Amino acid sequence: MTRPLRVAMIGYGFMGAAHSVGWRQAPRMFDLPREIEMAVVVGRNPDAVASAAAKWGWAESATDWREIVGRDDIDIVDIVTPGESHAEIAIAALDAGKHVLCEKPLANTVAEAEAMAEAAARARVRGIRSMVGFTYRRVPAVTLLRDMIAEGAVGTVQQVRAAYRQDWLVDPETPLAWRLQKEQAGSGALGDIGAHIIDMTQFVTGLGVERVSGTIDTIVKERPLPADGSMGLSNGAGAAEKGAVTVDDVAIFTGRLANGALASFEATRFATGRKNALTIEVSGDRGALAFDLEDLNSLRFYDRTAPEGRQGFTQILVTESQHPYVSAWWPAGHLLGYEHGFSHQVVDLVNAIADGSDPHSSFDEGLCVQRVLDAVERSSAAESAWTRVGAPIPAL
Amino acid sequence: MTRPLRVAMIGYGFMGAAHSVGWRQAPRMFDLPREIEMAVVVGRNPDAVASAAAKWGWAESATDWREIVGRDDIDIVDIVTPGESHAEIAIAALDAGKHVLCEKPLANTVAEAEAMAEAAARARVRGIRSMVGFTYRRVPAVTLLRDMIAEGAVGTVQQVRAAYRQDWLVDPETPLAWRLQKEQAGSGALGDIGAHIIDMTQFVTGLGVERVSGTIDTIVKERPLPADGSMGLSNGAGAAEKGAVTVDDVAIFTGRLANGALASFEATRFATGRKNALTIEVSGDRGALAFDLEDLNSLRFYDRTAPEGRQGFTQILVTESQHPYVSAWWPAGHLLGYEHGFSHQVVDLVNAIADGSDPHSSFDEGLCVQRVLDAVERSSAAESAWTRVGAPIPAL
Amino acid sequence: MTRPLRVAMIGYGFMGAAHSVGWRQAPRMFDLPREIEMAVVVGRNPDAVASAAAKWGWAESATDWREIVGRDDIDIVDIVTPGESHAEIAIAALDAGKHVLCEKPLANTVAEAEAMAEAAARARVRGIRSMVGFTYRRVPAVTLLRDMIAEGAVGTVQQVRAAYRQDWLVDPETPLAWRLQKEQAGSGALGDIGAHIIDMTQFVTGLGVERVSGTIDTIVKERPLPADGSMGLSNGAGAAEKGAVTVDDVAIFTGRLANGALASFEATRFATGRKNALTIEVSGDRGALAFDLEDLNSLRFYDRTAPEGRQGFTQILVTESQHPYVSAWWPAGHLLGYEHGFSHQVVDLVNAIADGSDPHSSFDEGLCVQRVLDAVERSSAAESAWTRVGAPIPAL
Amino acid sequence: MTRPLRVAMIGYGFMGAAHSVGWRQAPRMFDLPREIEMAVVVGRNPDAVASAAAKWGWAESATDWREIVGRDDIDIVDIVTPGESHAEIAIAALDAGKHVLCEKPLANTVAEAEAMAEAAARARVRGIRSMVGFTYRRVPAVTLLRDMIAEGAVGTVQQVRAAYRQDWLVDPETPLAWRLQKEQAGSGALGDIGAHIIDMTQFVTGLGVERVSGTIDTIVKERPLPADGSMGLSNGAGAAEKGAVTVDDVAIFTGRLANGALASFEATRFATGRKNALTIEVSGDRGALAFDLEDLNSLRFYDRTAPEGRQGFTQILVTESQHPYVSAWWPAGHLLGYEHGFSHQVVDLVNAIADGSDPHSSFDEGLCVQRVLDAVERSSAAESAWTRVGAPIPAL
Repeated sequence: MTRPLRVAMIGYGFMGAAHSVGWRQAPRMFDLPREIEMAVVVGRNPDAVASAAAKWGWAESATDWREIVGRDDIDIVDIVTPGESHAEIAIAALDAGKHVLCEKPLANTVAEAEAMAEAAARARVRGIRSMVGFTYRRVPAVTLLRDMIAEGAVGTVQQVRAAYRQDWLVDPETPLAWRLQKEQAGSGALGDIGAHIIDMTQFVTGLGVERVSGTIDTIVKERPLPADGSMGLSNGAGAAEKGAVTVDDVAIFTGRLANGALASFEATRFATGRKNALTIEVSGDRGALAFDLEDLNSLRFYDRTAPEGRQGFTQILVTESQHPYVSAWWPAGHLLGYEHGFSHQVVDLVNAIADGSDPHSSFDEGLCVQRVLDAVERSSAAESAWTRVGAPIPAL
Repeated sequence: MTRPLRVAMIGYGFMGAAHSVGWRQAPRMFDLPREIEMAVVVGRNPDAVASAAAKWGWAESATDWREIVGRDDIDIVDIVTPGESHAEIAIAALDAGKHVLCEKPLANTVAEAEAMAEAAARARVRGIRSMVGFTYRRVPAVTLLRDMIAEGAVGTVQQVRAAYRQDWLVDPETPLAWRLQKEQAGSGALGDIGAHIIDMTQFVTGLGVERVSGTIDTIVKERPLPADGSMGLSNGAGAAEKGAVTVDDVAIFTGRLANGALASFEATRFATGRKNALTIEVSGDRGALAFDLEDLNSLRFYDRTAPEGRQGFTQILVTESQHPYVSAWWPAGHLLGYEHGFSHQVVDLVNAIADGSDPHSSFDEGLCVQRVLDAVERSSAAESAWTRVGAPIPAL
Repeated sequence: MTRPLRVAMIGYGFMGAAHSVGWRQAPRMFDLPREIEMAVVVGRNPDAVASAAAKWGWAESATDWREIVGRDDIDIVDIVTPGESHAEIAIAALDAGKHVLCEKPLANTVAEAEAMAEAAARARVRGIRSMVGFTYRRVPAVTLLRDMIAEGAVGTVQQVRAAYRQDWLVDPETPLAWRLQKEQAGSGALGDIGAHIIDMTQFVTGLGVERVSGTIDTIVKERPLPADGSMGLSNGAGAAEKGAVTVDDVAIFTGRLANGALASFEATRFATGRKNALTIEVSGDRGALAFDLEDLNSLRFYDRTAPEGRQGFTQILVTESQHPYVSAWWPAGHLLGYEHGFSHQVVDLVNAIADGSDPHSSFDEGLCVQRVLDAVERSSAAESAWTRVGAPIPAL
Repeated sequence: MTRPLRVAMIGYGFMGAAHSVGWRQAPRMFDLPREIEMAVVVGRNPDAVASAAAKWGWAESATDWREIVGRDDIDIVDIVTPGESHAEIAIAALDAGKHVLCEKPLANTVAEAEAMAEAAARARVRGIRSMVGFTYRRVPAVTLLRDMIAEGAVGTVQQVRAAYRQDWLVDPETPLAWRLQKEQAGSGALGDIGAHIIDMTQFVTGLGVERVSGTIDTIVKERPLPADGSMGLSNGAGAAEKGAVTVDDVAIFTGRLANGALASFEATRFATGRKNALTIEVSGDRGALAFDLEDLNSLRFYDRTAPEGRQGFTQILVTESQHPYVSAWWPAGHLLGYEHGFSHQVVDLVNAIADGSDPHSSFDEGLCVQRVLDAVERSSAAESAWTRVGAPIPAL
């Protein structure tokens, strides 16, 4: 075995916690071809980042990402910062010869994403790997869904329904936060959770979204300013004065897939009672497959080729050793949770680095999602008229 | 008690069977203010209609609806013919002073529906009642859903999702039938099942759909001609030659409700494994309500005003004596089925006739649905751009 | 076609309403070999029974069952009285040459049930048919469950779980009613709802219960006497004085089936929130089948012979034309309800009368259930020790 | 902060993997009062245990548990060996002043468990903590279930149903393994999975099981000897020769709780299609609570005090920051899995050590479960007659 792969993680918010679990657990549960060292975590606030390093088990902390990205002893750069800084960090890291794992969405704009995809292409010829963190691809039931479609379980895809429903903006009195202001957040529900369902649709069907017709909207257009001026999300009380919400809080759109099938999408913060309900259902002429992230260990399969009178949706509990990633974990019927996908992401990246192969989801795939997001915004601005995604879709 | 109300039913297909159950069962399970007599069923084929009369328990059969509509001893005309003949029959019946129950959709065109609504208005001043057969309004769980919204259970409606999913066209080898040809059927999935979800959305929220952006599509554009030339739906085998499908088989659209909320709609014949899955979910700032016709005895309610940490979707089994229509049937936990709504429709119509009140759903409401259907078709033809429904929405 | 079969129904409580629906609907939805006439309903209170006749559509009412049973123009006697009178009426009717449909449980004691089975045997040789009203056998999903086991879908039966859970005695303040006093009711939860799950287990597996170990208990041993002295079930308020509950309100027992498999049973009025939850799950070496009466249109099937990694419980929506009884009703996905089983019971009885065959469930099968109930009581009295059912089990 | 707590884990099978996750994750996700060091893992096979140490992140490996238990630098001994060795190791560790975490069941016999409880009592006065690994108590939904009962959510407990259903012995051709032979395994389904549901019932209700009536059985009494003679569980093929299964593979029993309520239990390996289905439902006069380990993030609550007509089972998704243990993990709607309970166990043990308090579940509670298991075996041997558990139940 060669020397360990040394990882630097840039950023340390909620996603930093989840990625840390991935780096910590993957080598302990899977047989990896390379050892992992959680070398350094980087953030602007020196005390806070030191405390994160101590808590999550990173050997060092640092405040200057450029210096870290330039260090010879770092092999992998894991980017978990907000979207606006992805391009700069990822391009610098790739150009410095580091493998890069970058949280989704790949960037805040198509132009940034294009530059990143080009950097990834340049790096690829030098043996450098890149991956976008569409972690839900690696929920075992989702990987199985993709595999079963590839095996022909649904036949020709004729319709797709995908939704990502949350409810944390349902209350009109929830105060304004930075996430609800365009200059900082870039996008609202569309870019944050809509990106996931676009990617998942393309991933599981292997079909690109070529045209879209959609509407993005801001259901609650004004919200109380935070009483304490903090603009964080969790502050309970709002002041009497109100400010404008400048990002979308719901996006509803329809896409035309490469084979002509229609896919419907909904990304919303207003689905009262739905906490993290990413759902997808793929209908084909031989069967259907359905998944719900709030029941993530199950995959539902309808087989039209089963005998008449015996057909129905079969709830496959995706916890058996035959299922993707599962044999490294627990016996059948022992459930996996949200964070397991982060370990699987590490497994696939480390295997790809060792193999010299390109892991999905590539920066090209991340760019492709970005172009769909952009087309949805353009369609919405054009009275929801059908709009071309506007660039050749890479073979998926 | 005055003399019985004598009913004539025009048409005797699948809907004739269901309406017959309603007329037969309602007086036996509910305490009605007037007795009912199933007087006559009308159809073109004398042998077939006589056989239907005998089977379903109508005293007579006849072949000329005009004669029957003109008879003095008929009080109620129940129209279960295909949509193209609704206007002519309903207007004649109303003008002849008969109460009219007309299957949905009210008509095949807005113009016909307008004429029918005018006839209903003329008749109303003479004490004549009219009702469109949006039977699903009278599934107890749907009525309860409406009542709970009216009581404030969800607060301000912020988003609605409605879908009607079937799968009987999934197989591209299913032969062409008259229902798939525009000249006979008028419309495809949109008019047939899309009408239900538009009506249900307006009914339960009390909010009209004012603008729409949508796409209607024909997923399978050519199908084998029937081997036996019959153009009926159930013929198994297709010939080698193919013909064009000239109606839509899927409709996906978004509506703007009168209060600004967005409602998403899907009507499809391509939801593999979904047989008759009408679903609706209404999200508001105080709660949410969800219904699924394939689980029609349940209503799911999320109460945001419940204590934190104790919230969740409550599955109300709508089989208790407190629930709408249920006390006439069975004890708690004893399920109702599809056809019970047809009895409830009879109950409400007969009570309205006795009371001298107007029952929902009125012809105005049916017209309103027709206008939304028309706007969806216009939007689809205009690249799915947002389109006004185009006439004042009646107060619901 | 020969002359109609003329039916007399003895009794007119809740079961009278349900049986009336069966007699009314079966000939209207199914193609029966004989016509049906709802001739006469019999009850002790002349006004009440006349009113029931008028409401439910019986041509006559009467107060003396003996006279009716003796009438030449009656072909079928349908007994829906309390269990204590079943034996006397059924034996008289059979001996008078009438076909008999008798509500379950067949009788209140084994001795009565034996006399009834003998009367049925005597009548059979004269071409007279008899049937016990275990209506749940004729819920399409239950019939399908039985058919699939017979086809080998679960392989060798290795374990059965059956429960019937209700909650109407959960509140200790619910007043004492006649149903809670042994001299009138005979038995509590065991005889009333336990009988259903014993019968269903034997019916679907084809295996008799040969030995039992069980406990019957009275969870709430004293209840307020009814404030109005009525002893009916629905009176709201109780008096300060209390009386003893003298029947069981819960029964938990285990049975040994003829092939050695274990079956567990629970019949209870204390399953808070469960209204009418009859559930059964049959596990075998090739698969499993599960049913829940509160979701009566579904059957769940686990197929161990399906490919590894693709197994799971398939929810078959039992509403397709291939399913038992369904083709007479509605298209796929249109649900049936509680009362449809009563129509199916009529269909099977009338077909058997026309065919000259014996319908299930026979009086022998009803007797067999009675013997199991009796053995459970004896086991409970013997500290729950294993107890023989005590007579040869008839071939099922 | 004082020096870290140093842990020695004795054993390294499947439970060793799960406990290692707990020790590794707990300090990274929770704020613990003491640091943890994964010091040494002990097993008989030096290579295998060294490999386990490397994989799971233990600093050292060793082969002699006595030496390790005697080392001054060890603070906590975590026992994950088979049950037969629990008593010896735990007593030695406690007497050596080590805090002990011992996997369930506490021991293979009541006598061993009594000796262990005495050792724990002796140690307690010296400030030494002990805990039995009934991990499922610390699934957030189970802890919430207990908390809600304590708050009165179900009122007086009137009935409990608990089952643990697996299916890995369904196939009669599954070869004989050491786990199916009494001399090595001690017990079958009863001791392995029955122990969990006894403990959970007592834990959530706070009521001890005082008497039992039950049956343990061996459904498949002979199985093929393993072709390779290995007696491990996963060997595919069996030889032609058969051997006797000498432990139970199903246990069905009823318990009488301290307040008189009945609890029914089923532990089985023959529930075809049920992989790890621990279910419990507690019914009371004010409500009911239900849990299913195959859907472990949900708790279902029926509130009889809710308004009439609005009652139903509420599915609480137990992923909110108000729920037990959850605030250390992810946002609402992000699911937890099987292994999270092992972290929670570490959290509670470490907090107890720091506080000087006794954590549940105590060795007394483990002993209590052992006595119930023993009583079930005695009842089964006595024709299932009701049998006293046989010692005062400790206040829970």
